Amino acid sequence: MATEFTASVDIDRRLYRHDIAASLVHANMLHRIGVIDINDLHKIQHGLQEILADIESGTMQWSTTYEDVHMNIEVALTERIGEAGKKLHTARSRNDQVVTDMRLWLRDEIDELSTLLHQAQDALLNVAEREVDTLMPGLTHLQPAQPVSAGHHIMAWHAMLVRDRERLADCRRRTNRSPLGAAALAGSSYPVDRQWTAKELDFEQVIDNSMDAVSDRDFVMEFISMAAMLMVHLSRIAEELILWSSLPFSFIELPDTIATGSSIMPQKKNPDVPELIRGKSARVLGNLMSIMTLMRAQPLTYNRDNQEDKQPLFDTVDTVKSCLTICTHKIFPHMRFNRNLTAAMAEKGYTNATDFADYLVGKGLSFRDAYQVTGQVVKEALAHKKSLDSLPVDQLQSIHPQIGEDVYQFLSLKSVVASRDHIGGTAPAQVRAALARARRNSP
Amino acid sequence: MATEFTASVDIDRRLYRHDIAASLVHANMLHRIGVIDINDLHKIQHGLQEILADIESGTMQWSTTYEDVHMNIEVALTERIGEAGKKLHTARSRNDQVVTDMRLWLRDEIDELSTLLHQAQDALLNVAEREVDTLMPGLTHLQPAQPVSAGHHIMAWHAMLVRDRERLADCRRRTNRSPLGAAALAGSSYPVDRQWTAKELDFEQVIDNSMDAVSDRDFVMEFISMAAMLMVHLSRIAEELILWSSLPFSFIELPDTIATGSSIMPQKKNPDVPELIRGKSARVLGNLMSIMTLMRAQPLTYNRDNQEDKQPLFDTVDTVKSCLTICTHKIFPHMRFNRNLTAAMAEKGYTNATDFADYLVGKGLSFRDAYQVTGQVVKEALAHKKSLDSLPVDQLQSIHPQIGEDVYQFLSLKSVVASRDHIGGTAPAQVRAALARARRNSP
Amino acid sequence: MATEFTASVDIDRRLYRHDIAASLVHANMLHRIGVIDINDLHKIQHGLQEILADIESGTMQWSTTYEDVHMNIEVALTERIGEAGKKLHTARSRNDQVVTDMRLWLRDEIDELSTLLHQAQDALLNVAEREVDTLMPGLTHLQPAQPVSAGHHIMAWHAMLVRDRERLADCRRRTNRSPLGAAALAGSSYPVDRQWTAKELDFEQVIDNSMDAVSDRDFVMEFISMAAMLMVHLSRIAEELILWSSLPFSFIELPDTIATGSSIMPQKKNPDVPELIRGKSARVLGNLMSIMTLMRAQPLTYNRDNQEDKQPLFDTVDTVKSCLTICTHKIFPHMRFNRNLTAAMAEKGYTNATDFADYLVGKGLSFRDAYQVTGQVVKEALAHKKSLDSLPVDQLQSIHPQIGEDVYQFLSLKSVVASRDHIGGTAPAQVRAALARARRNSP
Amino acid sequence: MATEFTASVDIDRRLYRHDIAASLVHANMLHRIGVIDINDLHKIQHGLQEILADIESGTMQWSTTYEDVHMNIEVALTERIGEAGKKLHTARSRNDQVVTDMRLWLRDEIDELSTLLHQAQDALLNVAEREVDTLMPGLTHLQPAQPVSAGHHIMAWHAMLVRDRERLADCRRRTNRSPLGAAALAGSSYPVDRQWTAKELDFEQVIDNSMDAVSDRDFVMEFISMAAMLMVHLSRIAEELILWSSLPFSFIELPDTIATGSSIMPQKKNPDVPELIRGKSARVLGNLMSIMTLMRAQPLTYNRDNQEDKQPLFDTVDTVKSCLTICTHKIFPHMRFNRNLTAAMAEKGYTNATDFADYLVGKGLSFRDAYQVTGQVVKEALAHKKSLDSLPVDQLQSIHPQIGEDVYQFLSLKSVVASRDHIGGTAPAQVRAALARARRNSP
Repeated sequence: MATEFTASVDIDRRLYRHDIAASLVHANMLHRIGVIDINDLHKIQHGLQEILADIESGTMQWSTTYEDVHMNIEVALTERIGEAGKKLHTARSRNDQVVTDMRLWLRDEIDELSTLLHQAQDALLNVAEREVDTLMPGLTHLQPAQPVSAGHHIMAWHAMLVRDRERLADCRRRTNRSPLGAAALAGSSYPVDRQWTAKELDFEQVIDNSMDAVSDRDFVMEFISMAAMLMVHLSRIAEELILWSSLPFSFIELPDTIATGSSIMPQKKNPDVPELIRGKSARVLGNLMSIMTLMRAQPLTYNRDNQEDKQPLFDTVDTVKSCLTICTHKIFPHMRFNRNLTAAMAEKGYTNATDFADYLVGKGLSFRDAYQVTGQVVKEALAHKKSLDSLPVDQLQSIHPQIGEDVYQFLSLKSVVASRDHIGGTAPAQVRAALARARRNSP
Repeated sequence: MATEFTASVDIDRRLYRHDIAASLVHANMLHRIGVIDINDLHKIQHGLQEILADIESGTMQWSTTYEDVHMNIEVALTERIGEAGKKLHTARSRNDQVVTDMRLWLRDEIDELSTLLHQAQDALLNVAEREVDTLMPGLTHLQPAQPVSAGHHIMAWHAMLVRDRERLADCRRRTNRSPLGAAALAGSSYPVDRQWTAKELDFEQVIDNSMDAVSDRDFVMEFISMAAMLMVHLSRIAEELILWSSLPFSFIELPDTIATGSSIMPQKKNPDVPELIRGKSARVLGNLMSIMTLMRAQPLTYNRDNQEDKQPLFDTVDTVKSCLTICTHKIFPHMRFNRNLTAAMAEKGYTNATDFADYLVGKGLSFRDAYQVTGQVVKEALAHKKSLDSLPVDQLQSIHPQIGEDVYQFLSLKSVVASRDHIGGTAPAQVRAALARARRNSP
Repeated sequence: MATEFTASVDIDRRLYRHDIAASLVHANMLHRIGVIDINDLHKIQHGLQEILADIESGTMQWSTTYEDVHMNIEVALTERIGEAGKKLHTARSRNDQVVTDMRLWLRDEIDELSTLLHQAQDALLNVAEREVDTLMPGLTHLQPAQPVSAGHHIMAWHAMLVRDRERLADCRRRTNRSPLGAAALAGSSYPVDRQWTAKELDFEQVIDNSMDAVSDRDFVMEFISMAAMLMVHLSRIAEELILWSSLPFSFIELPDTIATGSSIMPQKKNPDVPELIRGKSARVLGNLMSIMTLMRAQPLTYNRDNQEDKQPLFDTVDTVKSCLTICTHKIFPHMRFNRNLTAAMAEKGYTNATDFADYLVGKGLSFRDAYQVTGQVVKEALAHKKSLDSLPVDQLQSIHPQIGEDVYQFLSLKSVVASRDHIGGTAPAQVRAALARARRNSP
Repeated sequence: MATEFTASVDIDRRLYRHDIAASLVHANMLHRIGVIDINDLHKIQHGLQEILADIESGTMQWSTTYEDVHMNIEVALTERIGEAGKKLHTARSRNDQVVTDMRLWLRDEIDELSTLLHQAQDALLNVAEREVDTLMPGLTHLQPAQPVSAGHHIMAWHAMLVRDRERLADCRRRTNRSPLGAAALAGSSYPVDRQWTAKELDFEQVIDNSMDAVSDRDFVMEFISMAAMLMVHLSRIAEELILWSSLPFSFIELPDTIATGSSIMPQKKNPDVPELIRGKSARVLGNLMSIMTLMRAQPLTYNRDNQEDKQPLFDTVDTVKSCLTICTHKIFPHMRFNRNLTAAMAEKGYTNATDFADYLVGKGLSFRDAYQVTGQVVKEALAHKKSLDSLPVDQLQSIHPQIGEDVYQFLSLKSVVASRDHIGGTAPAQVRAALARARRNSP
């Protein structure tokens, strides 16, 4: 029973490709420093390549008796090539081996994730471009605040993913460092060439302390932190998709492919996929908490607790990749704005009130006084169930004498949006400029 | 009651200095673009400087009636300078104002924290240098594994803090961006010069989407993530200080200043400060969970939920700074190794067994076979309560014939440690080289 | 500096009343078992009562020099009454003292919280009663599903709080146990009468293992878990209040006292209080994570880490109490349903479609077939922008011949709601019965 | 791709047994209220039993096309029995179905877990009984404090598990309530007999609000909270096992079956299983955070986010069960105390110092003064590397004149332990009494 309890091969065998790659480089290095001869090296190379082929074709016999991916492969190698196989583990330990594998594996996943992020960004740029001139109510506190370009709103989503990719690149740098040669914890009594193995495995640098090399899991914590922020972003986007496609909002239509019906209510079209994305963000937050609390009070160097670092890491990678992929291919390209309805809601929400106040500032009122006057105008409009720009000028002047005919030109949604005409503003010209910059910066 | 419930001034008034700094630059910009005249600008400048002086001298009257730090200052300004004060809020909103303040405040704290990290690293380098030749058992699974230089172990702590400072610098870059001019969410209808205000406030760039500018709290999430990892490190260090100073270990003595007695047991000397550091790491993990879950499902743009972003941020900054400071000044310089006891424990733990196996590999055995033989040697030694190097050679040869007199030279702790003589290894020469590199890279 | 770092009196002095209460009982017991004479007891009683008065009148001089609330009071006592004061700590330790204080304090807070929960429930019952006949769309996936009584919906909120109060009572039982007499960890060499002190302090039982008594913080973890679930409930309620009061929904009006305006947008009325409640739930989740990770890897018995148990506990109690209070007094009694708008949205969402299918089942179709047919009917209605009950019968029959004139009687919202006429169903009669049961079960 | 993204059958098919059980009762009820005839009922019963047999024999064809366990079974049923199969879903919805299944499933798991907890308690009682007279240093702050009976220490572990079982029973009550009949959210238009189905399924009560019934996941949150506390306990126990079996402590020997060797260091015996338990507690804390944050901001009633409630629940149940089982069978019965070493460490730690002070109190000193004097005695003993009871009486008297020959009788570990002779104290007689009570209360 204890064997079953401690065995990890069902989870960590996912590292097989990187385990073999690292073993090949390690064997090569052992030969270079004279620890194994050329025959043994060739046998090891041959054996490992055969094992790789077996694994990929599904004929490898994995066994919990040999605990983990490393021992399974080593045992298979020795069965295959005899004595030479037993020499492979010279000058290394499972402690540096497992963390070398994890770093190589995660580096590949980071690269894939970076591509997925880039694709998601592209998909958003396309939506933004299509919707630059779509008017919708920008919300604060879920209440209409000021009208914005829908393209501008989508570009805010894009900005989140840009930061995610920056953070991912930072995380890659710190992941891509070689612990190999740290052995159990103290380094090796063989003259191992750590720089050579690092270079062969495309690591950017050697981790400069053997005890740190085997005990550090910062790269896992940092990756999951980054992924948690990314999932917070996808969750916020999902939240908006759910809101916007709700019947009362009806800002957008979601494609049938990501919505499902009810088992009992024939009229239903539920935004299942965004809801699941929102739900899966909770899972990644849980993974973050797991890995942080796992590492929190461990003395150096390696402790078996760390076997539990793989589950949250693997699960996080899988979750993030699937959520990003479905956003890019099934959601973003297919969301359709109900442009009339978004504009109508912006009107209804008096989103041009700030501009009314700004108009009064132009007439010489201080902003705080203008704000007070506009409040009264909005009340008047509400009482008559009218929009601001359909109140007659004499009615306006009875509230404040300096309001003139020229006020109306500032009050259409279109002119309100167009007036935010500075870098980062929602004016269509600015949104187009932002789009161009985004495409330029991330070709 | 609702006023008391929603007021935040008791917490956010901590931002006063940065709020005033940003207001001064905003006012200047308003003048530059012709929104306020030079007289009003001078009044505002004067008024804000007086308010700053009042706050720092403790004579400012804060009131929850005005909710937050921003309104308190604006009200005080208008009381002082009249009409001109009401103009300051033109072309901005509390939404861009609060996040500008937070970014400026956090940037300063990051810089201070970076200095504290550097000082802590220096303190560790001094300990490491002093203890390069101290021998102690390196532990895996809390069991003696191989002997290491105590200086090498301390350098593993140092390596953690080096990564923390890297991450802090990355976080600073993403913090140091200007949201000012985003106004409520859509930008301003005034021709605000966002690049100019950004430059004046030493921001590295302008945030390129107004909706993102007011809704993004990534910099808070990223900072607390970074801080949580840092606290995980301090907690791991604390865990070792507690273990090492426990009576059974007795590896080190802690200074009396960080230990306290018992209210009832006169013989006690408790490692209170490391225990508190370990405890406080839990607090920062909690803060991380708060901020992540806070942001997770918020639709854009600003929601009042975000008032709750300050408490975890402020608490995290305070906690990390106090923990680092006490480590640097009260713990690291004063911990003393019981060098005889650490060496004795390394002996007792057969930490030279790996080298015995390596010796056999040198005689031609494969590592796996050498490992088996050494296992028998250790059993024999245990049975006779002897160290490996005090077993006579004929007894050793009865276990395996290839063991010769030359084995003993490999078995002293000193030679075992010295043999890990490659980059990152625990050989004193390597530890000294690592120290030199560390001092060079972070002058 | 270390003194400042380790001192906790600024936080734990909140326990003063319970600390003094426990000391009085302890002193009494010491006299009963002959450890202190009657004169000393009287001096201690007198001294402690004076100190209590000083604290409550604000004249107590707290000092971080004496670390915590316990030492501050003991020092003040000895200054006041001399030698007798030094005897008070006989046969106890700060280890059992602090946890006795915390349990007494939390017990009182639990009782207060239980009252607050009861008041909140009452407030909800009043809303539910008022809105039994209000029709609104019940939502799944944020989409209209079936019409419900608004009172029924409010009763779902009530049900959450009923469970919270059950859990609170369970938690009280486990909190209300006496650790006093456990002393440092092993019990006392004096013949302390633990049952007597427990009884005097109204504890339900004595904790039956001295080591457990000083190291256990389950009552804190359990309380914060309970509180986190309660905050999840308030957060879900807040989420609905925010949604329902958003312009597109407009299901309810929130009172002005809990909404605030914008600093720049004169038309805004933001649901600040519900947003803050939602935000504060994140804070309590963070506290839960703190306390759990704090306790997770501590060896027995008391470790200084536990000083950090107070901050999350106190903060949780304060947060929960203020959120519940504001719900009870400022939100629940003042929310107003826009009854026409909720009914209209239920119509618009085809929430009677399930009943259309059920009608067909009555005609002999299997539910799965009926579901298919109804789907087509809904499509037809959508295409003609009509409600189900305004489609003419021949149009319906062209979709399925068994549809007859009798279908219309099943399709009004009122009859749909009334038809859910079993225990727990949304029929007004059932809601009224549920209300009556609720009032009966919790008078 | 979206199908794959949303399908949950790979995870939720674990509920098959309870899904079928609930369907059988539902079908029966449908027949009782006249919705289906006896033939259809028999077909459904037959069909479901065949499907159950197929699943248990591994011949069921699960398909992600049908999303989840419920649809897979319903589709299989209709394939098998035709029209009658389509009638099963009358008067219910997946919303009440899934949560009925989960409650039934969890109730069974709770019962199993309760048994496992009881067995673990029994295993601890046996250890405690065996070690009542074993003397060891009781630790606070990981430093020797006072000597205790090892049996007493083990009973502190037992006390944790007793509370866990109490909480589990409370959680069972709130889990064991029937949501069946709530249908989608509003109840059913059929006259469903919810009380009858509840009784048939052994539920203790009917959930009294249909909207609450389908949206509430308190039972999942409460269960995982309870499990997290249980894992905190196992983690604290594991922490002590790791410490106690470390070479410096050597308080206990762990069985070879739960320790593993190193891949490179032949002398190692690592406490892998306790380390994994400690590690797995982090996983359950992560699950707790997931479920709490998942539920935190969901509006009523059912949202697809809740598909993500199963992974953390299932994983928690599996983790807790495997950890408890291995403790009960592989760890507790086989841990062996090194009784001489524990006693020696208690001596070395001056754990009798409190009793020295108590002796002085007996001579008339106040406790605080006695504490000071004893501090000097300990210093003197340390300086001479002697135990307190080997300092000659004249040397003691030079520190305080009232110390007499009678002091020695109070200083042996045995008498120190025996003197804590009150309920909950560590005196062997008290530990035996506690053991007897424990066996009596939980036969």
